[in-house]
Amino acid sequence: MSQLYDRVALIGLGLIAGSMALAMKRAGLAGEIVGTARSGETRDIALARGLCDQVFDTAADAVAGADLVVLAVPVGAMASVAAEIGPHLQAGATVTDVGSVKRAVIDAVAPHIPDGVIFIPGHPLAGTEQSGPDAGFAELFDGRYTLLIDEGVEAEPLERLATLWRGMGAHVDVMDADHHDLVLAVTSHSPHLIAYTMVGVADDLSRVTDSEVIKYSAAGFRDFTRIAASDPVMWRDVFLNNKDATLEILGRFTEELFALQRAIRTGDGDMLHDYFTRTRAIRRGIVEAGQDTGAPDFGRGPKP
Amino acid sequence: MSQLYDRVALIGLGLIAGSMALAMKRAGLAGEIVGTARSGETRDIALARGLCDQVFDTAADAVAGADLVVLAVPVGAMASVAAEIGPHLQAGATVTDVGSVKRAVIDAVAPHIPDGVIFIPGHPLAGTEQSGPDAGFAELFDGRYTLLIDEGVEAEPLERLATLWRGMGAHVDVMDADHHDLVLAVTSHSPHLIAYTMVGVADDLSRVTDSEVIKYSAAGFRDFTRIAASDPVMWRDVFLNNKDATLEILGRFTEELFALQRAIRTGDGDMLHDYFTRTRAIRRGIVEAGQDTGAPDFGRGPKP
Repeated sequence: MSQLYDRVALIGLGLIAGSMALAMKRAGLAGEIVGTARSGETRDIALARGLCDQVFDTAADAVAGADLVVLAVPVGAMASVAAEIGPHLQAGATVTDVGSVKRAVIDAVAPHIPDGVIFIPGHPLAGTEQSGPDAGFAELFDGRYTLLIDEGVEAEPLERLATLWRGMGAHVDVMDADHHDLVLAVTSHSPHLIAYTMVGVADDLSRVTDSEVIKYSAAGFRDFTRIAASDPVMWRDVFLNNKDATLEILGRFTEELFALQRAIRTGDGDMLHDYFTRTRAIRRGIVEAGQDTGAPDFGRGPKP
Repeated sequence: MSQLYDRVALIGLGLIAGSMALAMKRAGLAGEIVGTARSGETRDIALARGLCDQVFDTAADAVAGADLVVLAVPVGAMASVAAEIGPHLQAGATVTDVGSVKRAVIDAVAPHIPDGVIFIPGHPLAGTEQSGPDAGFAELFDGRYTLLIDEGVEAEPLERLATLWRGMGAHVDVMDADHHDLVLAVTSHSPHLIAYTMVGVADDLSRVTDSEVIKYSAAGFRDFTRIAASDPVMWRDVFLNNKDATLEILGRFTEELFALQRAIRTGDGDMLHDYFTRTRAIRRGIVEAGQDTGAPDFGRGPKP
């Protein structure tokens, strides 16, 4: 694939930015990749791993001369980063981000984008429970979806950014910010909060020891602990910035959980059986769509 | 390892019994393995895959002459199977089971066990989301825990059964039935009900299509769909037979979920951050204990 941007500036050098750097290099999509991170240690690792051709101490320095700027910091840090880089953005540049919520990021970032610079919010639906400049890998986005937000942007810069994501291995869908925030409340934010809660409850029960919780986790619980090991700062910011949609879905979840608890209490086996049969279909759909492995137990196999 | 039983009878030939047959054969633990299942198709597959040396049409015929009988049917079917085999059990035989709840299984099975036959309830904490006679594999129990219930059984038959499980690759812990049912409510039953609920909610939301739920599932949701694809009959019976402990843990879960929802609503970022930091430690413990892979994303990697 041919080069799409001359100089890409990555603001933040964690799992997502690091994976973008490696995926862009894999396909030769960027002339030069530069970056910055608050921590000097992160900047050193990014250079040592070859994520960036150059690193800068400040975001203002990093964006100078870049035709694509990627904001890859926690959602709560977007406003201050945007304020810092705004005056230093090159005319004609595209700014995008990779935050897990979109309406709040638009509110935080858009006011700082000068005329002649295009802001296209984005969100790659990919990640692992690990974080930091060591965590990224070139294949992270292969076969996953990246959502781009179109709230009246020009066609050419949007198509170029979509082409970049496809070049990094992703499928691209375009939608508006509010729908994004609702869909992600269902497919990501609520599941994460529920997983965090279940792991917290298990950790809290004095009649069941942590050692029992750990030894006997293969009976189902361990599946929850993976997403409950995700980056605490990132997830704090997600929930604080997608309050309404997340609380709405959690309200629906609690209502449904109460209905199932009532079926257990009253011994309504037919209701439970019908419910558990219906949920099997979604799993099949996900495997058929290539969004998860069809191997039993995620293909983990036994770990003696 | 040397042979521990002359003739093992498997009642039910699904994922667990099939895996036991293959694991026993791998280590030469049984002289002969016979079995039965309600469905003729299941019996044919079990013979064709070599799970059993002989299959029988009825449980009564299958247990004749067996020195170990394994009840591997859904918990709700235990009472009728026990009533059927009781008169046909050989003196000195051991009867065990692999059900996911223990107090209800003891209540269902123990009255049908004649004098001179020993009943030792058991529960291997291993499985996948797949079921049936094709689903088993010899390595299923490697490194996992099997819990045996000691409510006053003699030492020799208990130690022999524990040795069998160790020979099939498992670690063995012994506990009483009520503690088992509480621990499993935490590490298995509540997580499964929560996963079923979250998948049901996603499937129900008319403003988010099933196709969006499927395409964007890699953002966290897909992890829940695996355990929500487990066998509906098995799980209906689990919830109907471990009501009290499961409802108690779900009550604790809801209380905790409400506290986190309140923190989101009031913008209490410190509370969220502290909570999400604490839950990371449990994941580390599980990986260090060899109960899950330490590879990111369960080692699934990208599936382009």
